[in-house]
Amino acid sequence: MLRRLLLLHVPRRHFSSSFSSALPLSSPTFAVFGANTGVGKTLVSAGLAASLLRSHGASPSGVLYLKPLQTGFPADSDAEFLFRMVPSLLRASHAAHLAASLDILSASPSVEILPPLPEEAAFSYDGEGEVVRKQLSCRTLYAWREAVSPHLAAEREGMVVEDAHVRSRLAACLVEGENLGKGDGEGEVWKLVETAGGVASPGPSGTLQCDLYRAFRLPTILVGDGRLGGISSTLSAYETLLLRGYDVSAVILEDRGLSNDKFLLSYLRNRVPVLVLPPIPEDPSDDLTDWFCESSSVFGLLKDALQSFHSTRIQRLISMQRKSKDLLWWPFTQHNLVHVDSVTVIDSRCGESFSAYKVKDNKMTMTPQFDACASWWTQGPDSNLQIELARDMGYAAARYGHVMFPENAHEPALRCAELLLGGVGKDWASRVHYSDNGSTAIEIALKMAFRKFSLDHGILVDSGKSITNERNIQLKVLALEGSYHGDTLGAMEAQAPSAYTSFLQHPWYSGRGLFLNPPTVFIRNETCTLSLPPWIQHGHLSPGDKCFPSLAEVFCKTRDSSSAADLYSTYISQQLSKYSLSSNREHIAALIIEPVIQGAGGMHMIDPLFQRVLVQECRNRKIPVIFDEVFTGFWRLGVESTSELLGCLPDIACYAKLMTGGIVPLAATITTEAVFEAFKSDSKTQTLHHEDLGPFYSCEVPAAHLLPWHLQPHPKKKPCAWDASELSKTSMFFLSLILLLLDSNLELNWIITRSSRRSMLTALLHGHSYTAHAMGCSAAVKAIQWFRDPSKNSNLDFDQMKLNEMWDGTLVNQLSSLPNVKRVVSLGTLCAIELKAEGSDAGYASLCARSLIQLLHEEDDIYARPLGNVIYLMCGPCTAKDICTEQLSKVYRRISSFNPVH
Amino acid sequence: MLRRLLLLHVPRRHFSSSFSSALPLSSPTFAVFGANTGVGKTLVSAGLAASLLRSHGASPSGVLYLKPLQTGFPADSDAEFLFRMVPSLLRASHAAHLAASLDILSASPSVEILPPLPEEAAFSYDGEGEVVRKQLSCRTLYAWREAVSPHLAAEREGMVVEDAHVRSRLAACLVEGENLGKGDGEGEVWKLVETAGGVASPGPSGTLQCDLYRAFRLPTILVGDGRLGGISSTLSAYETLLLRGYDVSAVILEDRGLSNDKFLLSYLRNRVPVLVLPPIPEDPSDDLTDWFCESSSVFGLLKDALQSFHSTRIQRLISMQRKSKDLLWWPFTQHNLVHVDSVTVIDSRCGESFSAYKVKDNKMTMTPQFDACASWWTQGPDSNLQIELARDMGYAAARYGHVMFPENAHEPALRCAELLLGGVGKDWASRVHYSDNGSTAIEIALKMAFRKFSLDHGILVDSGKSITNERNIQLKVLALEGSYHGDTLGAMEAQAPSAYTSFLQHPWYSGRGLFLNPPTVFIRNETCTLSLPPWIQHGHLSPGDKCFPSLAEVFCKTRDSSSAADLYSTYISQQLSKYSLSSNREHIAALIIEPVIQGAGGMHMIDPLFQRVLVQECRNRKIPVIFDEVFTGFWRLGVESTSELLGCLPDIACYAKLMTGGIVPLAATITTEAVFEAFKSDSKTQTLHHEDLGPFYSCEVPAAHLLPWHLQPHPKKKPCAWDASELSKTSMFFLSLILLLLDSNLELNWIITRSSRRSMLTALLHGHSYTAHAMGCSAAVKAIQWFRDPSKNSNLDFDQMKLNEMWDGTLVNQLSSLPNVKRVVSLGTLCAIELKAEGSDAGYASLCARSLIQLLHEEDDIYARPLGNVIYLMCGPCTAKDICTEQLSKVYRRISSFNPVH
Repeated sequence: MLRRLLLLHVPRRHFSSSFSSALPLSSPTFAVFGANTGVGKTLVSAGLAASLLRSHGASPSGVLYLKPLQTGFPADSDAEFLFRMVPSLLRASHAAHLAASLDILSASPSVEILPPLPEEAAFSYDGEGEVVRKQLSCRTLYAWREAVSPHLAAEREGMVVEDAHVRSRLAACLVEGENLGKGDGEGEVWKLVETAGGVASPGPSGTLQCDLYRAFRLPTILVGDGRLGGISSTLSAYETLLLRGYDVSAVILEDRGLSNDKFLLSYLRNRVPVLVLPPIPEDPSDDLTDWFCESSSVFGLLKDALQSFHSTRIQRLISMQRKSKDLLWWPFTQHNLVHVDSVTVIDSRCGESFSAYKVKDNKMTMTPQFDACASWWTQGPDSNLQIELARDMGYAAARYGHVMFPENAHEPALRCAELLLGGVGKDWASRVHYSDNGSTAIEIALKMAFRKFSLDHGILVDSGKSITNERNIQLKVLALEGSYHGDTLGAMEAQAPSAYTSFLQHPWYSGRGLFLNPPTVFIRNETCTLSLPPWIQHGHLSPGDKCFPSLAEVFCKTRDSSSAADLYSTYISQQLSKYSLSSNREHIAALIIEPVIQGAGGMHMIDPLFQRVLVQECRNRKIPVIFDEVFTGFWRLGVESTSELLGCLPDIACYAKLMTGGIVPLAATITTEAVFEAFKSDSKTQTLHHEDLGPFYSCEVPAAHLLPWHLQPHPKKKPCAWDASELSKTSMFFLSLILLLLDSNLELNWIITRSSRRSMLTALLHGHSYTAHAMGCSAAVKAIQWFRDPSKNSNLDFDQMKLNEMWDGTLVNQLSSLPNVKRVVSLGTLCAIELKAEGSDAGYASLCARSLIQLLHEEDDIYARPLGNVIYLMCGPCTAKDICTEQLSKVYRRISSFNPVH
Repeated sequence: MLRRLLLLHVPRRHFSSSFSSALPLSSPTFAVFGANTGVGKTLVSAGLAASLLRSHGASPSGVLYLKPLQTGFPADSDAEFLFRMVPSLLRASHAAHLAASLDILSASPSVEILPPLPEEAAFSYDGEGEVVRKQLSCRTLYAWREAVSPHLAAEREGMVVEDAHVRSRLAACLVEGENLGKGDGEGEVWKLVETAGGVASPGPSGTLQCDLYRAFRLPTILVGDGRLGGISSTLSAYETLLLRGYDVSAVILEDRGLSNDKFLLSYLRNRVPVLVLPPIPEDPSDDLTDWFCESSSVFGLLKDALQSFHSTRIQRLISMQRKSKDLLWWPFTQHNLVHVDSVTVIDSRCGESFSAYKVKDNKMTMTPQFDACASWWTQGPDSNLQIELARDMGYAAARYGHVMFPENAHEPALRCAELLLGGVGKDWASRVHYSDNGSTAIEIALKMAFRKFSLDHGILVDSGKSITNERNIQLKVLALEGSYHGDTLGAMEAQAPSAYTSFLQHPWYSGRGLFLNPPTVFIRNETCTLSLPPWIQHGHLSPGDKCFPSLAEVFCKTRDSSSAADLYSTYISQQLSKYSLSSNREHIAALIIEPVIQGAGGMHMIDPLFQRVLVQECRNRKIPVIFDEVFTGFWRLGVESTSELLGCLPDIACYAKLMTGGIVPLAATITTEAVFEAFKSDSKTQTLHHEDLGPFYSCEVPAAHLLPWHLQPHPKKKPCAWDASELSKTSMFFLSLILLLLDSNLELNWIITRSSRRSMLTALLHGHSYTAHAMGCSAAVKAIQWFRDPSKNSNLDFDQMKLNEMWDGTLVNQLSSLPNVKRVVSLGTLCAIELKAEGSDAGYASLCARSLIQLLHEEDDIYARPLGNVIYLMCGPCTAKDICTEQLSKVYRRISSFNPVH
């Protein structure tokens, strides 16, 4: 047997400073986490590396071992341990029966506080027969002298490393590690990243290591604890990893005679393979060779388990595009137009970015992509908030699951209501009605508004006695063209006709509204410009009323006395006058607007003065005002509620999307007490005639949710001083029995129960199964508090309670001056850019938007979706301005260089 | 100073075997959990107990220390340690400066494997001045000799204790402990429950201790780990407790020179107070008196923190009724009828039961209540599944938060789709469309059905060129009276008129359907009986067609050839014939039914034969069939899909509620490929005339979600062989540029983009922000698999894939024979009982139902809600039959003894 020793010199690599790399997926990469410190992570890494390198054949061609954080250095150096131990293990056990060679290319624990080891060693063993070269590279990224937790060592030794640095350096190593040994063959390169201490031990900046490495979401080997108490610490560590979204691919632990492995095997059955290693010799003079020898079969099993995990994962990723295209029915998607290769497989999210599975140049990668559509406008979390929300979601599910809401109270629903009424509802709202999404919140808001309007305008009283007559009354909404309130029929009816409401889409849609064409505002050539609808003559407005030096002027209340305000007011009055005739059966019974920005309609900013005048005109006519804040609410536009921007208040407002921080559906319709009172049974509706109740008796009632019965003596027969609602249910019950006994009057009895039903009739009968579900409310509680907490949200200007500029003003102005840009709207977390159409050919511009989006997606790792010819970027309320500027710069570069052939 | 020693004899207590006790809330009770074993839990308990007993004044009057599980006994006995240490600490530190007396009433570690200590000792110290008697009771519930984890000790020593025993014994101790020292004063009795090992160490049965004690959800003191790695193990243990829904009231840990406490203090700021204890002497001969002395101020702080935690908690519980009544707007609730005292404050859920805050006889308790309304029909979890779901919810939130769905794939959505299509959709469905709740799933189903019907019946082609003409076509649904499909307008329109659809509730409702009155089935006097609607003459059916020995006969397919089937078929044909005229502008375009049971309509079982005939008649006429399985799906009726019961398949089916196991909202509308094809752009809709697209161009499109553009050359000008949809987007883009250059034909270009828009028009334009949200899909994946896994669901008959009887048949029959019971319906997880009305006075029966419900709530700890005069119990698919029988027996006793005065 021939053995040669080679010494090679390898140049040092440079690392990029920002982590935006696509991580290669073709070779297995695992993180090694420990249930505690001292459980043998490094022994597992070494044993696994040896087992891998011992494999027959060309694959794996190498093993890259990375120790990002090492304390107690140089006395402790896990990389050096592997560097010395693994070759000796192969020498001892291997060359004899396998003709393989091993190169250890690099074993430089490159340490910033120490000079890197100057020499790098490579060994090559040629066995008998065929020669297979394999490589082991062991690398330490950062090291500190003191043998304590990295955050303490870094603090004491004066070298704190930022998380971003650790991540970018690690990412660079993982990327370049892909080429390890590639000169020699086509085999895989396994990469092992061994963490320091336990799963939640702090890194140098104080960030827990499970959080520090989360963006990579590497499949994980959890080294468990075989000692007394080790079942608990192993399972807790496992759950900490799950609460960060990691997949644990294997648990391996030392046998300490307590059968911890047996319990874990049983507990984790069908979830994670559990392997057990022989007891580790405690004698420090033991060189562990015998132990590794004894353990080699276990490491073989570990290797197999990991290999199988990796293959399953990759096969699944590869198959997901096809399967999704075959099984899923995506909303708003013409499936014929989606090519299977263009389906984006999203593996995970970390704060503002997805990790998407991508194949480029035949290489599979996991690529971070900025989620520029904020996953359809719901997103709020940065990576910190996401972890907090995850923990809260686990807690809420464990504490409550889901619990019944009507007539009940639970902490998340109550706390969320308190926060809503103290925040977006401050100074006007006093009631919170929960539902599931924006669309249902709107349906509920409309029901509220119609009831309030009917009561205020005597419609229920005047309309005669029969339901049939009432049905002849047409209640309509006043709304703006281009507004959008949801996809259920009730919400659709409040929108102007469009392709989305065609017979093809819904044969029941009729468009029950008066839809006005509003003036809009945008930035063009660095100027805020008012765009007028056809019903205003341009000549009627002075230039000062049409152009503004900044957005602040557009919102300025002094405009209330401008000529524009007069024009708006006149126009609106004229439109409403058609409905004010008392003989008219058509009524405008609610105003519904998206305040300031119409989202789905193309990110149009409506002149806030116009909306303010609109609200005032409706107020004057006692028409209830609904603000649809589903898109605009919760800091989306830089303020918690757009009422602050608009300078006027609604009677009813709807919230959803960002309310839960962007994690789970929940909606709220909040209202004034006056609206709430319209549903109380002692309100005017009690003057309803008995005949009106007819249908209730003529059919089986879907009385899923009948109320506590209500005792109300016959008003004419037995006038009664006490207020029934103030009595407890029990005393009411006995009182009714007494009355029955005294009276033996069946009619009285009948009145009692009907009274209950009549009260029920006036209640708002709209609710969903998961109304006020604990997880949604808990998420909302966390998100609402987080966004308005300056210690969490560094974008917040706490004095003014608004967000600082997120989309760089200079860049926005530059964009607005590009020749192919028609308009820009930038407010809060939103920056929308409409591309210019040639002539009237909006379609062509939309074609440009499409290809721009595609370039952004493929070249710039920005996941955006077009709105016709509008491209938009949307971040969360806590997104760092740096991130925004980086993305917006990319978009600026693309648009300014985009020059499609005409 | 005078000291006396008394010896008292206290009789042994008996413990109830089942845990259904209301736990007292007035005195603070805490669980002591450890981050690991050996972190000093018992020292913390002792120090805290001493600190409490040292307090001035009468309160606390005593401390009850419970050690439910002790191993290594009797050498190790934590109760004995407290029993000896605490008095000595008080002697040493206390009597000198505080005039108080201390009784140690009971220190019997009562051990089942050992004879209980025969004597119980009480000490009394009389100090100077006023004498305050305080008591300390230290108790061990179960003990084993070997110093290993309880599950191992129990296994090895042959004494496994069931979880229920541990819980009931602990509950009894906590209840009786309330009276500790009550002879002497009115002070509080603090109770400390010290667990064994770490948070997730197994109990004797193998259940993790954090799970074993979960039903109590005691506020928790977490004893952290001061050693190297202790930050990680403390935080992981903390997260394990959160994942069980525990509230951690304080973290306390030993200082081991690593400043773990500083890091934890910073990390847990604003969440949990963190306290640090001086280093614990390692010398075993140290009696720790000095250490306790040195630590006494820390224990004082701990006591204050716990006291403050307790007061805050209680104050909040007390205030929640009033605040909820003031701020919340409950659905389906006439707020005037809800008295503030009748608001149920739900503190948590554990499997099938709530923990509700209750005040009875002026005593505050936390009382378990069986959730008989299954929180409005959503609930599936037993306590095991709830923990699993909680973990999955945390994981899904951490891994995905929420990610964009259209044109994307992520694992939970895809996996859930696979499970739906392989389960409830097996053999017929091939597509899954996600939405948020039953109501939206129905709106989507209706849109699907109308499109399919329109295409199949040539309505879109025949109706002429203009949208206006199309609007004259009236598409209606065929539905059953008493059916209920949701509260959004579209879902409401598919229901028969009722009080829920009155003008008062929604002025836009018109009832767009043909509503048939169906025959129903129920059990009365132990016989399955058919109840016929007025349109059937009773005489036309033989007795054998009207009464059945069992429910199985009702479902039997042989009835298809009975005279009932003929009658049904004739009637339905006759009803449908009105709509079959070709000149008619009204069409029945969809059948929508709740299969087998109409839920909200009063838990009516519809004759399955009638529904089967209905489906067949619609099939014959190419009317799409929708099954609304929102209530009935996922084992609610004992089978995964009610199609199995009904013996026929739909074209579209809707699922929600139980689909996620009852934890978070999610809905799915699943369909056949034929329905899906109706929305593809290469379907017949491509024959649409251009004019039909008019409105699309005349308004600003709410094109939130425009598609990848699609190249489709002008069909007349440039016939083209390649199939555009098979080309990649990039090549299509360049191809289009080439075509444009070659042709310079703007019309061609226009066709290209319009083609994309036309395709978009035919797509299904309905989606919600959180469509296919990862948490909902993850929960569904877990729940769907869990329910059909016989290793998890012991109710499952795997061969027949149906649930075994859950509601005891004998009891059900007995109920059906009670004189005041009109009918019973028992199927799967549902048992519904309609009370008999006197004459036609349904209202009176509903009055009875109300008071019965109230008695069940207040006396039997069953939380139910009435459906008019129907009382129902609903469990989860995994609920043990024992639990069901217990609840049903209570209901039987109540109804049979219920005899209201007439």
